[in-house]
Amino acid sequence: MNADRPEVPRVVALAGGVGGARLVDGLDRVLPAGALTIVVNTGDDFSHWGLHISPDLDTVMYTLAGLAPEERGWGIEGDTFHVLEEAERRGADAWFRLGDRDLMTHLLRSRALAAGDSLTEATAKLCSRLEVTRPILPMTDASSPTTIVTRGGDEMAFQDWLVRARAGPEVQRVELGKAAQPTGQVIEALRLADLVVICPSNPYVSIGPILSVEGVRGILREKTTVGVSPILGGRAVKGPLSSMIAQLEGKPASAQQVATHYEAFLDGFVVHPGDAFSAAFPVLDTNILIQTREDRVGLARALLDFARSLR
Amino acid sequence: MNADRPEVPRVVALAGGVGGARLVDGLDRVLPAGALTIVVNTGDDFSHWGLHISPDLDTVMYTLAGLAPEERGWGIEGDTFHVLEEAERRGADAWFRLGDRDLMTHLLRSRALAAGDSLTEATAKLCSRLEVTRPILPMTDASSPTTIVTRGGDEMAFQDWLVRARAGPEVQRVELGKAAQPTGQVIEALRLADLVVICPSNPYVSIGPILSVEGVRGILREKTTVGVSPILGGRAVKGPLSSMIAQLEGKPASAQQVATHYEAFLDGFVVHPGDAFSAAFPVLDTNILIQTREDRVGLARALLDFARSLR
Repeated sequence: MNADRPEVPRVVALAGGVGGARLVDGLDRVLPAGALTIVVNTGDDFSHWGLHISPDLDTVMYTLAGLAPEERGWGIEGDTFHVLEEAERRGADAWFRLGDRDLMTHLLRSRALAAGDSLTEATAKLCSRLEVTRPILPMTDASSPTTIVTRGGDEMAFQDWLVRARAGPEVQRVELGKAAQPTGQVIEALRLADLVVICPSNPYVSIGPILSVEGVRGILREKTTVGVSPILGGRAVKGPLSSMIAQLEGKPASAQQVATHYEAFLDGFVVHPGDAFSAAFPVLDTNILIQTREDRVGLARALLDFARSLR
Repeated sequence: MNADRPEVPRVVALAGGVGGARLVDGLDRVLPAGALTIVVNTGDDFSHWGLHISPDLDTVMYTLAGLAPEERGWGIEGDTFHVLEEAERRGADAWFRLGDRDLMTHLLRSRALAAGDSLTEATAKLCSRLEVTRPILPMTDASSPTTIVTRGGDEMAFQDWLVRARAGPEVQRVELGKAAQPTGQVIEALRLADLVVICPSNPYVSIGPILSVEGVRGILREKTTVGVSPILGGRAVKGPLSSMIAQLEGKPASAQQVATHYEAFLDGFVVHPGDAFSAAFPVLDTNILIQTREDRVGLARALLDFARSLR
């Protein structure tokens, strides 16, 4: 972090789905205007009902807009599912649970993309309609879909595996999309960053795709980079991460195991009390269970203090 | 009509919106399987929320599927408007009232078109999902939008004028899309027809576009063609027709006035009691107010009997 202006650090958060969105929400509440930029995984993006769906962008946007449900990790709180029920009635695809209010996001995004907007531009317009002012940047404007290769030899688009197959088929390998070109906005935000936060998201399918964007790893090596563990007491807080670790690494899930993914550029790592380990970088233990607003803010504060101590 | 097999006439109905849909519903109930084909105006088609909307195709399809409202001339009975309310909330276009169930039609159609289906194929798939078995054929697979030129000199897409501007601006001229190529299905259905019914739809903006499809007028001249008046006692049963007649022709609306649009190929015309006139072709007067099922069936029977008497 830049010691000249410790009170206004420029922070870039790399985020996937719900865990990332909740930490971002904490950072959003703690950091002053202009300080936070969020770079979001788009490896999960897919086409459904002819619409462009960006699950992680939406989770982050809805969380910052105050629209995300408390419990459920997707969609809009209190949404209805009348269009989905009609899909079921007509024998159309109904495995991906698109709510009625949520659907407007995908309609507006798809229309903007069809009219020639980049995904970055379309995302900015969506955020503006929901009065979300922090920049939310897709990791790339290009298509770079993540594929799950199952032990049975099937290649499944990520949402097919996660949602349609309920993360059932054992994972042999995660194949990231071809190395995507970063956008100018992502590169600029990272270059100007005093701190890069790797949110508590899945390292294979949420953070991995962001790191695979051309040039991103190189910049992170020059930055103060702090990660937060998505594993707590050997289990993932949300999602299929702990079984993925077991299937991909043949080891039980642990915070330390996740940190190895980032060690080439990690300056510090945050884990839950009891999960600490010794490493070449400082490890902070503090509460990383961040369902409530208070916990999100608490973790954001502890993280920023920790980062400030690293230089 | 072919005297050899009067019991199974092949009937093609040319239809626009709600008036056409209701007569088609009556014909559907009276005619045996395989006898009826419906050719529908697509001059009103437009893009909304990035989706391809075909108002007249949908009105006919919903009517035959038993989903059309009794009173309202569009959409699905009992539909909700949660997506539309979200559009309003986000400041997106909300002037065209798309219901939640209705929306699935436009999503499925748009996806099919994007995947390379023709509008004819997409319509057949939509009908199949709703168990509508009578062939509903768009007049063309090409884009052939109707434009309203107002007295103020504005050029408005038809739905913009009808729905957004509530048919308010005075009409100077109706401009039909460039003469569209017919589909093989439309030409075949017309060639095989024993009877062509011109439904009680607007002659300028509903039937006019169908007649402007290449080759259609030529075939009608060789066919037994019977029209039903959309004007009853000097007023349109539904929609902006009577003021359009006044604005475009400088004359009060009348059944006879509408018949003049078709006289080049008309073999008979059906009007409401009290609206009869003398012409070069027979005119039948009978009840043409067809909101209820009984009235629709009654008019269909009277029309088929009348047509049978014409040859």
